[in-house]
Amino acid sequence: MTAFDNSNTVDIWRRHFLGASATATVALASAPLPFLAGISSVRAAEVSALPGIQAILFDVQGTIVDFYSTLVTAGDRMGANKGISADWDGVINDWRKLYRQGLDEVIGGKRAWVTTDVIYREALDTLLSKYPWGATFSAAERDELNGIWRRLTPWEDTIPGLTRLRKHYTLSTLSNGSMASVIGIVKNGNLPFDCVLTSELARSFKPDPKVYQLATSSFGLPPEKILMVACHKYDLKAAKALGFKVAFIPRPLEFGPKGKVDLAPEPYFDLFAKDLNDLARTLGS
Amino acid sequence: MTAFDNSNTVDIWRRHFLGASATATVALASAPLPFLAGISSVRAAEVSALPGIQAILFDVQGTIVDFYSTLVTAGDRMGANKGISADWDGVINDWRKLYRQGLDEVIGGKRAWVTTDVIYREALDTLLSKYPWGATFSAAERDELNGIWRRLTPWEDTIPGLTRLRKHYTLSTLSNGSMASVIGIVKNGNLPFDCVLTSELARSFKPDPKVYQLATSSFGLPPEKILMVACHKYDLKAAKALGFKVAFIPRPLEFGPKGKVDLAPEPYFDLFAKDLNDLARTLGS
Repeated sequence: MTAFDNSNTVDIWRRHFLGASATATVALASAPLPFLAGISSVRAAEVSALPGIQAILFDVQGTIVDFYSTLVTAGDRMGANKGISADWDGVINDWRKLYRQGLDEVIGGKRAWVTTDVIYREALDTLLSKYPWGATFSAAERDELNGIWRRLTPWEDTIPGLTRLRKHYTLSTLSNGSMASVIGIVKNGNLPFDCVLTSELARSFKPDPKVYQLATSSFGLPPEKILMVACHKYDLKAAKALGFKVAFIPRPLEFGPKGKVDLAPEPYFDLFAKDLNDLARTLGS
Repeated sequence: MTAFDNSNTVDIWRRHFLGASATATVALASAPLPFLAGISSVRAAEVSALPGIQAILFDVQGTIVDFYSTLVTAGDRMGANKGISADWDGVINDWRKLYRQGLDEVIGGKRAWVTTDVIYREALDTLLSKYPWGATFSAAERDELNGIWRRLTPWEDTIPGLTRLRKHYTLSTLSNGSMASVIGIVKNGNLPFDCVLTSELARSFKPDPKVYQLATSSFGLPPEKILMVACHKYDLKAAKALGFKVAFIPRPLEFGPKGKVDLAPEPYFDLFAKDLNDLARTLGS
């Protein structure tokens, strides 16, 4: 774990409490919360690099689940059944780009709000029209492929990391995925979240501030007591601007072995943890 | 379990599948869901009295948690510390009535939407002004008492019943309580829900149809695939009118040993289960 903080307060705090040895256990005070001060901590975390945090929000697609390999595997299987040899790496990466364009059209007011299910499905039609083999995919097969976004496989560290963090923090998703897709991912993967929040509930998409404000109002907590965790910088930058603490988790394989991913630390990161197990350690779980 | 259904379809279904013996196990088909058909079942339920159900919604205050005894215990403790002997049974029951009036003012458009945290807190002030000892409660003590609504104790059957149901169904709250209060109740009680939905997300309160429609849109399921569970008839009646299946759970002690509760079966109940364990049995979990 590397702590990034403009003011070095985290490093100062760690030195103060841990001294030369990093093995000491300091129980953090967990005072009873006054009215409207939000959810209460179930159990105080042990030494945490961010002692004020009570709730943690997670981006889902990319950060919690590996959409790339789940979709490439599904595409390969469907393609093999049809005798098609397609470049699924290219398809999935183009699909994700078209999806982002769809979200930005909604945020920019160019079209009315729709769920990501609709955006992904429309993008798939656009995409398949560019491939000679695309027309062999029936509407039902396109629906089936689109439905994979509801059954994405978690990364190896996801369940153990969340399980540890959940002992000390309230854990929620904060995803651009539709409610139904994120509930599907959580339920199919047995992911140990306490609740499911998505941009659908704010009728917008990240990085629109409305989506992050949904989390502060739902938890009844000020943003500085909430940590946003993502592998995407745009998400953390938006949350940080609103006063949230932010943790970056690199997912170098998000777009597959050939994918380009920006993993460089930024001065606005409060934490940089290599995966969710590392994050749990860093936050005293 | 007693099944109530105008058309007797549930009883006919049960006789058809179970015959004289109720021990047979019939695996229900769980076909892959098409696009936008909502969340998929994780595992098919065994014999269920309502085979089409995929998700279950639970009222919280009264149905899942015992607000009466949690609050009477807290009031007694706080009163004893102050040397006050108060009729907490009366206080809690009046508090709940004033709360309901507050919700109805919002639904009726007489006031702008506010969270139930605010409604409970205002009602407490109104209530305490009627008792000679009321003035001895400081604002901080009132806040503390009000905060108990976020830490209500589950009924004895709640956790085992939900744990069994969760294997086959997606479980969510659908509460009039604020998001922060329901997240608090779920987290403090380790209640095994898959997600937390409350009327706050629809900026209204049950029985406003908007609140139930939040559940259909969030799950991406038609109402007939969703079961609403409550100990309050007004809640089930509203859900049923929108096409949901409904199950009544009697909570005879909801308002304490002297409380009057309407427990009579109604023709619109799809199910009447004596508690959540009984509901789990009835639904094949």
